[in-house]
Amino acid sequence: MSESLRVGLAGLGTVGASVAKVIAEKADELAAQCGRPVEITAVSARDRSRDRGFDHTQMHWFDDPVALAQSNHIDVFVELIGGDEGPALDSVAAALDAGRHVVTANKALLAKHGVELARKSEAAGVILNFEAAVAGGIPIIKTMRESLSGNKVSRVYGIMNGTANYILTRMERDRITFAECLADAQRLGYAEADPTFDIEGHDTAHKLAILASIAFGTQIAADDIYMEGISNIALGDIEAARELGYRIKLLGVAQRTASGIEQRVHPTMVPLGSVIAQVDGVTNAVAVEADVIGTLMMSGPGAGGNATASAVIGDLADIAKAQPGRQQAPALGRPADLLEPYERARMRTHEGGYFVRLTVHDRPGVFAALATRMAEQDISLESIVQHGAAPHPVPMGPDNPYGDDLDGTDPKTVILITHETTEQAIRKAIEGILQDGHLVSRPQVIRIERAG
Amino acid sequence: MSESLRVGLAGLGTVGASVAKVIAEKADELAAQCGRPVEITAVSARDRSRDRGFDHTQMHWFDDPVALAQSNHIDVFVELIGGDEGPALDSVAAALDAGRHVVTANKALLAKHGVELARKSEAAGVILNFEAAVAGGIPIIKTMRESLSGNKVSRVYGIMNGTANYILTRMERDRITFAECLADAQRLGYAEADPTFDIEGHDTAHKLAILASIAFGTQIAADDIYMEGISNIALGDIEAARELGYRIKLLGVAQRTASGIEQRVHPTMVPLGSVIAQVDGVTNAVAVEADVIGTLMMSGPGAGGNATASAVIGDLADIAKAQPGRQQAPALGRPADLLEPYERARMRTHEGGYFVRLTVHDRPGVFAALATRMAEQDISLESIVQHGAAPHPVPMGPDNPYGDDLDGTDPKTVILITHETTEQAIRKAIEGILQDGHLVSRPQVIRIERAG
Repeated sequence: MSESLRVGLAGLGTVGASVAKVIAEKADELAAQCGRPVEITAVSARDRSRDRGFDHTQMHWFDDPVALAQSNHIDVFVELIGGDEGPALDSVAAALDAGRHVVTANKALLAKHGVELARKSEAAGVILNFEAAVAGGIPIIKTMRESLSGNKVSRVYGIMNGTANYILTRMERDRITFAECLADAQRLGYAEADPTFDIEGHDTAHKLAILASIAFGTQIAADDIYMEGISNIALGDIEAARELGYRIKLLGVAQRTASGIEQRVHPTMVPLGSVIAQVDGVTNAVAVEADVIGTLMMSGPGAGGNATASAVIGDLADIAKAQPGRQQAPALGRPADLLEPYERARMRTHEGGYFVRLTVHDRPGVFAALATRMAEQDISLESIVQHGAAPHPVPMGPDNPYGDDLDGTDPKTVILITHETTEQAIRKAIEGILQDGHLVSRPQVIRIERAG
Repeated sequence: MSESLRVGLAGLGTVGASVAKVIAEKADELAAQCGRPVEITAVSARDRSRDRGFDHTQMHWFDDPVALAQSNHIDVFVELIGGDEGPALDSVAAALDAGRHVVTANKALLAKHGVELARKSEAAGVILNFEAAVAGGIPIIKTMRESLSGNKVSRVYGIMNGTANYILTRMERDRITFAECLADAQRLGYAEADPTFDIEGHDTAHKLAILASIAFGTQIAADDIYMEGISNIALGDIEAARELGYRIKLLGVAQRTASGIEQRVHPTMVPLGSVIAQVDGVTNAVAVEADVIGTLMMSGPGAGGNATASAVIGDLADIAKAQPGRQQAPALGRPADLLEPYERARMRTHEGGYFVRLTVHDRPGVFAALATRMAEQDISLESIVQHGAAPHPVPMGPDNPYGDDLDGTDPKTVILITHETTEQAIRKAIEGILQDGHLVSRPQVIRIERAG
């Protein structure tokens, strides 16, 4: 049996502790699978005295993760510190510069500095692995980097935030509002005290930017993503979606278009009968469409200590099996210098169907006015449905320039489903509808996505 | 750029031609991803003159695949001949013995000779890859061999035969019988003239045996699989399943139990709301449950020239990136000599819920008799539903020892759904029910499977 792969672990939170425990418990199994033992020889965290649930007395302790990263006691540095600057960046960069392989679960770091870190790993001839950074335990990075060789990816999309998916799932199942559900999720530990990062799409955007780079061979462009969160989704949207054969999911979507690459994160209507519509709770799912293979879809746990640890250990096993000193496969699927510039497709050129929910005054001519505004933009309608009373009429607020012109009649809800059109057309149509003054509250517009 | 990876391709049918075309079309892309060119330098097939849709005039031609396998013109031998003996076995064995890497899509060959071939590849220090052999384009082999390092798998199951899944999907969607659907599938080229291999579960069993070996670290045991096909599934079963919240799929399931490993292929009721229930048509899906990661699920194209070619090319890319001359990761996840003996769990100890459809005479006491027989075996019922007229009463035939005792009343269909019980208990209960003489036709028993 060859020499051990010596692992230095920085960050001993939930994931770090899981990694340490699994490596200790599965030592024999891992050694058999990798052809050599994998062992943690050094660790770093802020507080040495805290009980982490595993014994690190036989490991070297470093208060400073950069010192650990550069230590001669390790072959590979595992970064589980978090954050897109500071100790996480410093230690990963230091490890690569010192010729250590790196495994990280840090999507924010990669979204911001991924190309620069990939370049460092190539210069040093070491491996930079980050399976855990996107969709937790789902091996989507390995699949895109390795299994889909020779494939030209046209679209990659998925449910990549467990908190948002949990909230949408609970809203539908328990018929509760977003606010009620969020409070519940916070109580159960599925949502942070400040949930913005998860529910407004930032977390999904980081993951999407990494996937898009590998999928399309382009620079990572995490700041150039159209983003809409789910806080605006009403129970009425979810119920109307269901009646019409859709379910609402927060998707990250990256696709090639004639005018560049579209990267977008927004609530999305997916067909009820699609696989992705069944992905419930904190589970994640990612689908890839490519020219040779067709469509591939994966679902699994998107977060949690063990699922993340599983991905980290898979990354370590690959490093254990790799040949030391040899030029390794590039982190982003192709060498960093061969990544093409990211050309953003404008959101207004986005093509797709739309769900439009309008709360209107119940008076003659409203339907005709709506239909006319759509027709003016060449938008053809798949269906137009009128509901009785509006389930949750939202009074127009200060951000509604057309004011609240309730005239005493019961407002009605009208749902339009459009055939494929453009974002620009739908925005103009909505603008026209707002001008007509029939609305009681702000229109809700949700994009429909083809999904398998 | 390093030297080319020289590929010898044996078998130039649909998949072989796709592999050749994609490698030619994607030469630059592949070279960038692999760090060196991948090119087909030699081919073998039975008829040199036939037009294969790609130009092989610049490649060495071999009438004999064994000669190709041993040729000095190649680094890797791709076997797409088919069959579990003869030229496929001879050429793969010859390639490994000659120190060539091997990529094969041949599940029958691996199901029968996988361990012996894995041992040969280890002895020669070369790679034996076979992603395309199981579930077509879905990278389940790579995921199990690499991504799930450190995981102990408890169950692996999936839809691994596109023909069977296509038939079940069409039966439900178009409300047609198995026979009508099979005829249609044959006309469309989705089913062979002799469909036995696909619809009776043999093909699924081959794939399952390979997956089980990697999942559990055991010898491949393809002859030791409980197998039931779908030819016995009536439209009435599918419709009753749907009413009760299930869908019928032909699953291959391998799981660890207290008494050994269960390997079984049979029609299975899966919950309508599960991801696997949405896997339609010729699409395949595989789920893995393991201690660290939890549940991982993948779906994608299970067959077809391009999907299979995608998997073959992914395997080739891994070989292109590998270090020549180094001991490679073992084909079945652990060295062949460390594979444990396969211990079969007896089918009668299988635990699960059951769907039982009975066509009975409409006379007093029938329900009580059925319920009594279940109670005698300690089987508790989740539901018992009586339908009006039996939708498709099958007259008892020669294989029904209790004869046809139609007494002039309209027969009724009774559906029982049991809570978890054992195969032995359900068989005894059915035996008792048969003895009671209330049945008009043979009972239908379909296992229910927990599925995500």
